[in-house]
Amino acid sequence: MNHEIFMQMAIDEAKKAYKINEVPIGAVVIKHGEVIGRGHNLRESSQNPLMHAEVVAINEASKNIGSWRLEECVLYVTLEPCVMCSGAIVMSRIPTVVYGAHDAKGGCSGSLMNLLHESRFNHQATVIAGIKHEECSMLLKDFFKSLRNNKLLEKNKKLEE
Amino acid sequence: MNHEIFMQMAIDEAKKAYKINEVPIGAVVIKHGEVIGRGHNLRESSQNPLMHAEVVAINEASKNIGSWRLEECVLYVTLEPCVMCSGAIVMSRIPTVVYGAHDAKGGCSGSLMNLLHESRFNHQATVIAGIKHEECSMLLKDFFKSLRNNKLLEKNKKLEE
Repeated sequence: MNHEIFMQMAIDEAKKAYKINEVPIGAVVIKHGEVIGRGHNLRESSQNPLMHAEVVAINEASKNIGSWRLEECVLYVTLEPCVMCSGAIVMSRIPTVVYGAHDAKGGCSGSLMNLLHESRFNHQATVIAGIKHEECSMLLKDFFKSLRNNKLLEKNKKLEE
Repeated sequence: MNHEIFMQMAIDEAKKAYKINEVPIGAVVIKHGEVIGRGHNLRESSQNPLMHAEVVAINEASKNIGSWRLEECVLYVTLEPCVMCSGAIVMSRIPTVVYGAHDAKGGCSGSLMNLLHESRFNHQATVIAGIKHEECSMLLKDFFKSLRNNKLLEKNKKLEE
C-alpha cells in the first residue's frame, strides 16, 4: 500500500479547507485501494462541532458501503485525530489509521493519549504516524501565519482610521 | 433546574430507539430551559457509526442555534457517554452533562476514564451521574433480555423444523 499517494489525497482535501478559511485538515477513507469517503474540516463554515475532516469522511464512507462497520478500511488524515475523531475511529472499527502531523496540544492517537491503543475498548487500531508530516504541518503553519498577518493588517487599518 | 424532567425527555427518546429495535439510548440538549436538540440511537437502522443519541442531539442543537459552541447548554443522556460522544461533548464545549446509567464496559465520562475531566483538553465539563439511573438501566436490561429471548425462540423454531 502506498501511504504517500493516499496521504496526498488527504492533503488535497486539507487544501479545500484552507481555501474557505477553515483550519486545513483533510481525510480520506480507503477500502481495498478505493476511496470510499473524503472530508475536510468544515467546523466554522457549517458552525457544527462535529464537522471535523475525519467525521465527514467516516460519514461518507459508511453511507457508501451501507454499513457502520468500516472493517478492512484505512483512514488517512493530515493531522493526528482529536478526542472525538479518535472515538469515531473506535466506534467505526477502522483497523488502520495513518496520520501526517502530530498534534501535541489535542492529539488523542498518540500525543496526549492513545485512544486507538486502549485495551479496555472493544476495538483497537494500528497507527502509522508521520507520513508526509512536513507537508501536512507546513499547511497548518502557513494557515495560522496568514491568519495572524490578516489580524495584524486589520489592527493597523483600524489605527490608521 | 429539574434534572428529572429533562432526563425523562431523554428516556422518551430512548423509548423511540427501543421501538425500532435499536439499543435504547436517548439524549436531549437543553439551553436556558428549552430543548434545542433531541436524539436517539440510530446506529443499526442508519448503518452509520456516528448516529449515537448524543451526536444526533448535538448536531440538531448546533443547527438550531447556528453555532458550534454549545455554551450554556446541558446534555442529558440515559447512558454514560462512550469515547466518541465524550469527545463530541468536549468539541462542542457543553459545560454540563447529566447521565442516567453508568456504562462499566465503555463509559468514558467516569467509568473507564473521564474525558470530561481531562485537564489537558481546552474544555472540561461538570458531570452529574445517576439521575433516574434505575429507569435508564432497566430499559437497557429489558431490551437485551428480549433480544436474547427472541434469539432463543428463533433457535428453538429452527430445531423444530
